[in-house]
Amino acid sequence: QTNVQIGGRVQADIKSYKVGDVTTAGRVAKNELRVDDDETSRFWLSGTEDLGGGLKALFYVENRFNTDVGTGQNAGGNGLANGNTYLGLSGNFGQVTVGKHTFMEDQGNAVQYGIKGGQAIPSGFLGSKNILNFVDTTNGARASGMSTGRVNNSIQYVSPNFSGFKATVGFSTNPDGNEGTQAGAAPFNNGDYSKGQQYFLAGNYSNGPIFLNLAYYDQQLEGKPAVGDEKQVRLSGSYAFPFGLKVGAQFDRATIEAGAVDRERNAWQIPVSYQFGANTILASFTKAGDIKGQINSGAKMWTLGYDYALSKRTNVGVFYGKLDNDSNATYQPVDSGDTRNGSVLLGGESASIFAVAVKHTF
Amino acid sequence: QTNVQIGGRVQADIKSYKVGDVTTAGRVAKNELRVDDDETSRFWLSGTEDLGGGLKALFYVENRFNTDVGTGQNAGGNGLANGNTYLGLSGNFGQVTVGKHTFMEDQGNAVQYGIKGGQAIPSGFLGSKNILNFVDTTNGARASGMSTGRVNNSIQYVSPNFSGFKATVGFSTNPDGNEGTQAGAAPFNNGDYSKGQQYFLAGNYSNGPIFLNLAYYDQQLEGKPAVGDEKQVRLSGSYAFPFGLKVGAQFDRATIEAGAVDRERNAWQIPVSYQFGANTILASFTKAGDIKGQINSGAKMWTLGYDYALSKRTNVGVFYGKLDNDSNATYQPVDSGDTRNGSVLLGGESASIFAVAVKHTF
Amino acid sequence: QTNVQIGGRVQADIKSYKVGDVTTAGRVAKNELRVDDDETSRFWLSGTEDLGGGLKALFYVENRFNTDVGTGQNAGGNGLANGNTYLGLSGNFGQVTVGKHTFMEDQGNAVQYGIKGGQAIPSGFLGSKNILNFVDTTNGARASGMSTGRVNNSIQYVSPNFSGFKATVGFSTNPDGNEGTQAGAAPFNNGDYSKGQQYFLAGNYSNGPIFLNLAYYDQQLEGKPAVGDEKQVRLSGSYAFPFGLKVGAQFDRATIEAGAVDRERNAWQIPVSYQFGANTILASFTKAGDIKGQINSGAKMWTLGYDYALSKRTNVGVFYGKLDNDSNATYQPVDSGDTRNGSVLLGGESASIFAVAVKHTF
Repeated sequence: QTNVQIGGRVQADIKSYKVGDVTTAGRVAKNELRVDDDETSRFWLSGTEDLGGGLKALFYVENRFNTDVGTGQNAGGNGLANGNTYLGLSGNFGQVTVGKHTFMEDQGNAVQYGIKGGQAIPSGFLGSKNILNFVDTTNGARASGMSTGRVNNSIQYVSPNFSGFKATVGFSTNPDGNEGTQAGAAPFNNGDYSKGQQYFLAGNYSNGPIFLNLAYYDQQLEGKPAVGDEKQVRLSGSYAFPFGLKVGAQFDRATIEAGAVDRERNAWQIPVSYQFGANTILASFTKAGDIKGQINSGAKMWTLGYDYALSKRTNVGVFYGKLDNDSNATYQPVDSGDTRNGSVLLGGESASIFAVAVKHTF
Repeated sequence: QTNVQIGGRVQADIKSYKVGDVTTAGRVAKNELRVDDDETSRFWLSGTEDLGGGLKALFYVENRFNTDVGTGQNAGGNGLANGNTYLGLSGNFGQVTVGKHTFMEDQGNAVQYGIKGGQAIPSGFLGSKNILNFVDTTNGARASGMSTGRVNNSIQYVSPNFSGFKATVGFSTNPDGNEGTQAGAAPFNNGDYSKGQQYFLAGNYSNGPIFLNLAYYDQQLEGKPAVGDEKQVRLSGSYAFPFGLKVGAQFDRATIEAGAVDRERNAWQIPVSYQFGANTILASFTKAGDIKGQINSGAKMWTLGYDYALSKRTNVGVFYGKLDNDSNATYQPVDSGDTRNGSVLLGGESASIFAVAVKHTF
Repeated sequence: QTNVQIGGRVQADIKSYKVGDVTTAGRVAKNELRVDDDETSRFWLSGTEDLGGGLKALFYVENRFNTDVGTGQNAGGNGLANGNTYLGLSGNFGQVTVGKHTFMEDQGNAVQYGIKGGQAIPSGFLGSKNILNFVDTTNGARASGMSTGRVNNSIQYVSPNFSGFKATVGFSTNPDGNEGTQAGAAPFNNGDYSKGQQYFLAGNYSNGPIFLNLAYYDQQLEGKPAVGDEKQVRLSGSYAFPFGLKVGAQFDRATIEAGAVDRERNAWQIPVSYQFGANTILASFTKAGDIKGQINSGAKMWTLGYDYALSKRTNVGVFYGKLDNDSNATYQPVDSGDTRNGSVLLGGESASIFAVAVKHTF
């Protein structure tokens, strides 16, 4: 028991989801009242062991679950060790770990939080889970996210901190975790296994009021199918004024290999927060541009929230957000709406979300 | 680690299951010798945080498993956070939590335990898992339970204790946890999402030797199918004499919407226990009445047990029970018998169970 | 929290898998670069309670996961309580537990480790997961292991230690955990449930430099199908010289009921290790003989490794192994190769594995 630490985070919210701007004749869009867990709750086991000479062994195992439904009822990423999970060594040279790591997804999320962090922002309001990280599909299917969740079968190196600067390099032999089970496409049957892989690079500068982050990944699918390979670059920054105001900006360019013409789009976000005492007001505006060569295929999203810190470990908040599709776009807020009941968005429709949330860290 | 507590409960039993009163020509009913986990073992993580002014933040995460088989081999409710799991606030006003809660199922189980509680009673001998909580189906299929297990997507309010009296109110936006994935039946396509929901109300009075509990729920399925909505009310009480005898009674009325005529039945139970030192003798008789309009569709069950408390945390016991179906009833003990091997009961058949059990709380 | 202990083990390796000795015309075997968890990482909850008079209650719950992929992506044995999980009593009479136990699989693995144990040997290099425990199938399908993993629904008795000697007896009412769900084959429809079961017996002598272990099991499948019943006996021993050298030997005979002629083969292994300071050199040679009546159906495997103990709890190592099939054999290293991508071995082919591994115990 002296060798392991236990920590975690639990979240829940009560949420109203409403569809708007319906223009399709005969369409009856459905609204929903929901109880959700919008951060994927989790508990982790972790530990470090001093090996002498500045060298340390370390491990981290993150177990994910939802407060609102059972594990079996929400397979998406929940389960034992389905969060970041790795072991490795750290020392003067930095830190090397092997296992599962979140590479691209969360990069830049920090700029959306208030100065002291910890606000109960629903995950769908963060860039990692909204249109900043999504690329809409062309024919009305749901928008597909870029690299989301943990990158399986991966190795990560994090450099030491040089005057506020830190670099992260990652490599995965198979991001999807289906290593050795995908049939390779014919042209790649060359004696080497058809290599799915992901490269990841990030540079971060955090110093006093300044935060800057640049991240990039390049992913090839296991079995080398004709379409689906991804590339993404994201630049994020924020400046924190001494009186509690924090202003940020994020720019994201994502490309999905899609045959003759790749699906490529730019997106950007301006997040602003103001913290006074235990109160934080949070706002953001995000714009996903048209997919290259497809007119009116973009979307915009704005969010507004008020968070109150009951303590350093417990936050409550109310949040409102609206996602507005251009006429040919079908972006969808995460964790709401489903094609089976008619609550998923059609081209040009919008959705608004009102949530009361509570979050506790242990 | 100072912010989280770990506790749990493990159980196992060796069990003989025998089918009796076979009258169907050519029927060869099968008996079974089993090793089972009849309480669904579990460990929980929990914590409270003092927020000042009498206010507290709290969370509880219950992880369920079976001691006898692997998680994947017994999907029924096992898994990370598949037990009660919630977070919320408590104070002078009472306690409000959001997540998954057990509303109806366990109501009144307390009257079956001996005075000091903790006996190793197999769950199939408790009202929550036997004919007190089941409504037989009409045509030989297995009996279907009423609201069993955790109610997903739910909010619960528990009042402060007023001189022994306490009230609980619960509401779920979707008890089955399939929020937003069920197609709504046509008449409900009215612009609001077809609302599955559950209301729950309970009042409890515990004072010295007296225990009284009244509980009610009303559930509508997501997507509003034509049949399947449920209502149930249960009144439970017990009186504990100073010399170790405890006598109780439970009455249950359950209704399942089933088209032209609802399936409705009354059931009642008389549990008696006698505790002397570390020994407890436990007995109960339960009777499920005919389903309204269906003759000989009831059943009766009696149980007898002896439990020895090796400590406050460890109990061992031997238990015998017999379930007797009326000629048109097919009630079935939980955790035994399966249609695939011929050990499930046909109309009018009985089953007896003999179990040696051990239970440990940590 | 005072009643429960938490411990665990995490492992990861970077692994190159190469297919050799390809003779089939047109065959293009694939090689793989992988990140794997080759020990199935785990954390356990355990506790003991002193009941007085030398009697103790005890429990153990082992939760398994992989560091490299999510739980859902690797169903094989991972999950909550999917490792050894049991509760019971211990005293002067020995220890009796009920739940899930690993009976045969790990028997004798101890002889492959260096004198002080704890080396980061990938599981595929151990007898429990390689050709010492496998019986090849007859027609090119993958080799099937003998009893691997935990034996469900089981009871175990372990004797006290008599001058270094200890006996273990196990019984399972259903090793596969599908109790009551398999249809019984016709001749067994005799009123008793068609009894799948397993008997297990082991005797161990550990005293100073000497280790001797003899283990046997006999398993009948639930539902009594015509083929598939298993028997296995394994004798293992090692001698540890005072200067760090340890020499062992294992002999295994396995039989799988397969209709007219059972599949039966002998296998043996010679493991050698040499430990000096924190360094351990490990080598082994294993030979699986022909399956009775099938010529050239055997295989051999040799392994070589170097392990460095960074501490008592953290080991790193490099390991090389080669599995060589006879012309009619299709044994396959575990955790590598898959029929879907052409990396699984055909008759007469070989495979080599090079792995860099790290292991940490907490």
